[in-house]
Order: sequence, then C-alpha cells, then structure tokens
Amino acid sequence: MEIAEFQALMGRLYGEADTARGIPSTVAWLCEEVGELAQAVRKHQADQQLHELGDVLAWLASLANQLGLSLEDAAARYVDDPPA
Amino acid sequence: MEIAEFQALMGRLYGEADTARGIPSTVAWLCEEVGELAQAVRKHQADQQLHELGDVLAWLASLANQLGLSLEDAAARYVDDPPA
Repeated sequence: MEIAEFQALMGRLYGEADTARGIPSTVAWLCEEVGELAQAVRKHQADQQLHELGDVLAWLASLANQLGLSLEDAAARYVDDPPA
Repeated sequence: MEIAEFQALMGRLYGEADTARGIPSTVAWLCEEVGELAQAVRKHQADQQLHELGDVLAWLASLANQLGLSLEDAAARYVDDPPA
C-alpha cells in the first residue's frame, strides 16, 4: 500500500472525529500509542507489537492530515537526501 | 511510495547501524523523534513538522525491521478491519 493511500484512508475513516478532537489531543494519542508499542517490545509480544506499529502509523498519518502535511513528502527526504 | 518499500529502504540505509545499536536504543530514538515532532507542532513550524514526521516514520520502520515485522502488515489491519 502507498503511504499516501494509507494517509488518505485515515482521513476518510477518522478525519472528522480527529479534527473535532483537535491537534493537541492527536499528539497525546500518538504518544500513548508509542508507549503501548514500547511496552509490547519490552514484553516480547510479537502480535501486540504488530498491532501497535499499526496504531502508531495510523496516528502519525492522522496528525499529518490535521497539519495539512503529506507523510509521502516526509518520507521522500529519505529517498532524495537520506540523513547520514 | 509503498510502505514496504520505505521500510526496505530504511533497512538498506540504516539496518546495520540500527541492529548494532539494538532494539531498546531504537525505541529510545523513536521516542526522541516523537518529542521533536510534538515540539514542532507546538511551535507551529511546518517545515520542521514535515521533517519530524519523516524521522518518526523512519524510526518506526527501523524498529519494525529489527522486530522482524512488516509495517505494511500492520497497516493492513486498518484496511481489513479498521478500529471503530
């Protein structure tokens, strides 16, 4: 799946609710999911790790939507001029 | 760009160094980048937000690589059975 396609899907599924909730709440929720991912890593729970990887990606895409930014553009820097 | 293609690129660019550094350090670095993203949001710095969105995505992909998991598979849950 294309990065841009995933971001657009997040917008269709959750855009209205996420926008109503607002950007600071989206940042908070992203942090919550990162914490859950860290816990799944610490506990060596592979199924949960996969679940939380998806949730972090979803909230990252939702935040990008609310900021009016493209995750695809963000990723492009690593193609065009990857940090050392 | 495909999610899987981005993850593979991160593996080619950074896989060796990230593996040497280890999973806990990768989790820590992911958290650091999330913090930088949160700061760029708070400061309304659009260029920096785009930069940090890319960095978070990159460290998320690197962590997935080290866990032997696919971000594409993780994203698929939102296609097949999106959380309410």
